[in-house]
Amino acid sequence: MLHWLRHYRRPLLAGDISAGIVVAMMMVPQGMAYALVAGLPPVVGLYASIAPPLLYALFGTSMTQSVGPMAITSLMTGAALAPLAAAGTGLHAVLAAQLALISGAVLLLCGLLRVGFLANFFSRPVMSGFTIGAAVLIAWGQVGPLLGSRDLSAPHWPSAAMGIGSIVTLLLARRYLAALLRRLGLRAGAADVGGRLGPMMVVLGATVLVVVLGLGAAGVQLTGEVPSGLPGLNLATSSAHWRDLLKPALLIAFVIFLMSMSSAQTLALKRQEKLKSNFELVGLGAANLGSALTGGFPVTGSMSRSAVNFSAGANTPLASIITALLLSVALVAPTGWLALLPLPAMAATIIVAVLGMLELDTLRTAWRYDRSDALALVATCAGVIVLGIEAGVIVGVMLSMANLIWRASRPHIAVLGRIAGSEHFRNINRYPAETIPDVLMLRIDANLFFGNVEAVSARVEEELAAHPATRHLVLVMTAVSEIDTTALFALGELNASLHQRGIGLHLAEVKGPVMDRLKQSDLPARLNGEIFLSAVLAIDKLAESV
Amino acid sequence: MLHWLRHYRRPLLAGDISAGIVVAMMMVPQGMAYALVAGLPPVVGLYASIAPPLLYALFGTSMTQSVGPMAITSLMTGAALAPLAAAGTGLHAVLAAQLALISGAVLLLCGLLRVGFLANFFSRPVMSGFTIGAAVLIAWGQVGPLLGSRDLSAPHWPSAAMGIGSIVTLLLARRYLAALLRRLGLRAGAADVGGRLGPMMVVLGATVLVVVLGLGAAGVQLTGEVPSGLPGLNLATSSAHWRDLLKPALLIAFVIFLMSMSSAQTLALKRQEKLKSNFELVGLGAANLGSALTGGFPVTGSMSRSAVNFSAGANTPLASIITALLLSVALVAPTGWLALLPLPAMAATIIVAVLGMLELDTLRTAWRYDRSDALALVATCAGVIVLGIEAGVIVGVMLSMANLIWRASRPHIAVLGRIAGSEHFRNINRYPAETIPDVLMLRIDANLFFGNVEAVSARVEEELAAHPATRHLVLVMTAVSEIDTTALFALGELNASLHQRGIGLHLAEVKGPVMDRLKQSDLPARLNGEIFLSAVLAIDKLAESV
Repeated sequence: MLHWLRHYRRPLLAGDISAGIVVAMMMVPQGMAYALVAGLPPVVGLYASIAPPLLYALFGTSMTQSVGPMAITSLMTGAALAPLAAAGTGLHAVLAAQLALISGAVLLLCGLLRVGFLANFFSRPVMSGFTIGAAVLIAWGQVGPLLGSRDLSAPHWPSAAMGIGSIVTLLLARRYLAALLRRLGLRAGAADVGGRLGPMMVVLGATVLVVVLGLGAAGVQLTGEVPSGLPGLNLATSSAHWRDLLKPALLIAFVIFLMSMSSAQTLALKRQEKLKSNFELVGLGAANLGSALTGGFPVTGSMSRSAVNFSAGANTPLASIITALLLSVALVAPTGWLALLPLPAMAATIIVAVLGMLELDTLRTAWRYDRSDALALVATCAGVIVLGIEAGVIVGVMLSMANLIWRASRPHIAVLGRIAGSEHFRNINRYPAETIPDVLMLRIDANLFFGNVEAVSARVEEELAAHPATRHLVLVMTAVSEIDTTALFALGELNASLHQRGIGLHLAEVKGPVMDRLKQSDLPARLNGEIFLSAVLAIDKLAESV
Repeated sequence: MLHWLRHYRRPLLAGDISAGIVVAMMMVPQGMAYALVAGLPPVVGLYASIAPPLLYALFGTSMTQSVGPMAITSLMTGAALAPLAAAGTGLHAVLAAQLALISGAVLLLCGLLRVGFLANFFSRPVMSGFTIGAAVLIAWGQVGPLLGSRDLSAPHWPSAAMGIGSIVTLLLARRYLAALLRRLGLRAGAADVGGRLGPMMVVLGATVLVVVLGLGAAGVQLTGEVPSGLPGLNLATSSAHWRDLLKPALLIAFVIFLMSMSSAQTLALKRQEKLKSNFELVGLGAANLGSALTGGFPVTGSMSRSAVNFSAGANTPLASIITALLLSVALVAPTGWLALLPLPAMAATIIVAVLGMLELDTLRTAWRYDRSDALALVATCAGVIVLGIEAGVIVGVMLSMANLIWRASRPHIAVLGRIAGSEHFRNINRYPAETIPDVLMLRIDANLFFGNVEAVSARVEEELAAHPATRHLVLVMTAVSEIDTTALFALGELNASLHQRGIGLHLAEVKGPVMDRLKQSDLPARLNGEIFLSAVLAIDKLAESV
């Protein structure tokens, strides 16, 4: 906690300040736009950009992560609240904060329970499919505001002109702005960062157009009044809705964690940092509780904003603290100009931002490399688009789960033979190793646990059927460092079944810790055979007895 | 399909007939009682005992499984329908069949998609906790009918006397009836089977008491009229409820499969049969569709009834077919006597039956052997009792999932050294093996996939930090038989990161199929190092180059 502050050195300051300023300029239109995605008043997006990064700076581990509103969690917030309250109402805002409260509490709890290993849960293809699907949903949701009309066949032309013009400008800026700035004499790094400020410039330019051309009166929708002043302490919750919010809050907490971890991992790779997922959970939990208490909504680490933060020079969370301070200043200063931001331009920034999430590299690689992974990607993506964002998370979880179980249920098992004249035993399919007809030796190359006991039993029966002369089965446990309770029962049942058939069950090369645990059970006593220190000792003794 | 019929031999017949009769006698009170647990008219339990075993006989794989109503699925049916329709109404019955319809379709689909490996999902402790919790809920739910009153402090004394008397009789019968029958001259096997007919005898005895003492008029509740005749074709569904039924139907399908598989596995162990989980899914799917179409409710294989079927001599599914025929006869014959079965005695049979599910051996073993497994058992059990049966399934799924991810995320990785003067490489922590400071060799003892890539990366970084002189990292892939897309990307990222740091990344002993797949990717081309056939070749070449 705050270890970065104790070791803070002067040379880090310039980078932190410039990143803090750049991210603040990015955050103003983005925060407000994402609040609109969630069906919330734009100012809520600014509120959610102040306390969360400060709290994350206290508890999180990533040095350059930018925590605040994010497209996908905003979409999920909107989807979760739609059936419960009308967008823009007071109840809607209360429920949004309540959602952040529950999500934050869950994240914090998970961090304290140290279940950060759950971050290993989504495969990259599933994650990619989820992100692409969400990007499509978000972009689709912005077409209405972009055209200034809910009826897409009858756009409000001034709005549509501004919206489409903004998209074109943003795409051009993304492509050429950095090069232009470089040609204007900026250093390459600074030019690249400047190039990221396209959205801010487009929104400001559109606002100037609104003022100059009086577009508000012409029917172009504007953000509307943004109350001045810092967010107050929000303790409002709706007691009738705890139960309704539980499931979406759990799903949102899960996505907050996944999104933030994948952003932090990308950054950690660039900076050779070590991430601690349990601290990350605590940091995100604190950030969301902070968001809830200041009238915000669920927040997470944003990959795109964090990348800007990093490339703008951020060295420590001080950059995020500076961002938060600048946003506070913007709220305390007169906010009249914020009321004039035109929605079509904001929608354009969202659409162009989520286009950046349409990353097809994973699909391309998976398609060539592992078709089943590619199908999982497509299925998750289709799940999100067809069934909605919540169902999409569940589809992703189920696919990952099935994948995990499927892998666990296929342990590698080798029939062993002895390399002639040596004390070495090897897989008879790969080496010219000798076997004795009465003794079947199987090496189990996996820990024994509930996920593979059935597969192991089935394989044992298969090998026994293939070696009908077997009188002694030796399980070589070199690779087994754990046997869980389910597998213990399965070994007991195998022992009983072999006993009935007059076949001995022996264990060899059991690791020390595994043996210590086995002694706590009655298996060694009931074993219809012996426990040998090594495979050699087993085969010598058993070959003799035959 | 029906392979057992093609190979049917005369000597099997006697056993099948006796088992068919015994199970039919067990099924009448049990089927009716479980229908009551589900809030359905008792006759529905008989309907659900006819078509399902016939269809299971056609498609299932277990020879002695008895498919029909079962305590836990009945409880789940009751819990799922409680918020949707009042027990005993026509809608309630329609929804029960609809639940079986959806569950059956899901099971059938899962079988056709060959996802039977999902049976490996619940660990034995989680399963045991779930069963114990469900048994407690079921028993608790029967206390009212047992005492003839919803207000447990004011029992209806004639009912309570009959109920408690029945329980005492059943417990005595369970303990002493078999011994008594043996002393009366029955063979041991026959006596054991006769001992299982306690519930039928108690219910019949109680019915005689009802008639003789006129207990119906005294306020003892009876099953009420049971319509005579076979079930007709039921195609009724409530179109308004598909969506509401989906989630409970999925959970029930899951439990149907788990319960049936664990029953079938117990039997397969006794008979040394091989189970095919995908056929089992198809068999259960067909059985539930059959149940739905004949006005039944969700059915599954019952461990206790299957055990009776087995010990009464069943050799093939013909036993179940005989059971179904006998139940049909009972329905076609005058059913007046079925209307007089007293509910307190039925409740007593349910309570005593579920007491048999309170198996504490798993808890005892797990407590001594693996405390975390014991805690998972207790947590699942508490989840079922406190949060309800549906939430209990979800708690179990989540615990199993977390367990699986946790195990997957801890791959074994060994630092290798060379056994002096040999070509063998071994774990330096276990063998006196020699290392070279510039070359770090790591053997990864697991397939590389999304569940462990983070752990592998973290461990690689740890070992690099512990061996700061490393110029070449060699990953020895002897135990890696698969690298998924996520791991492929992680290897690419590791490669890029090591390249930046001036460290070479080499692979050794890559298995043939893994190498073939890797060639489909651009990793070999981008690799900042070489791919060696063996660890020896790697160390010889790299030691030279240093």
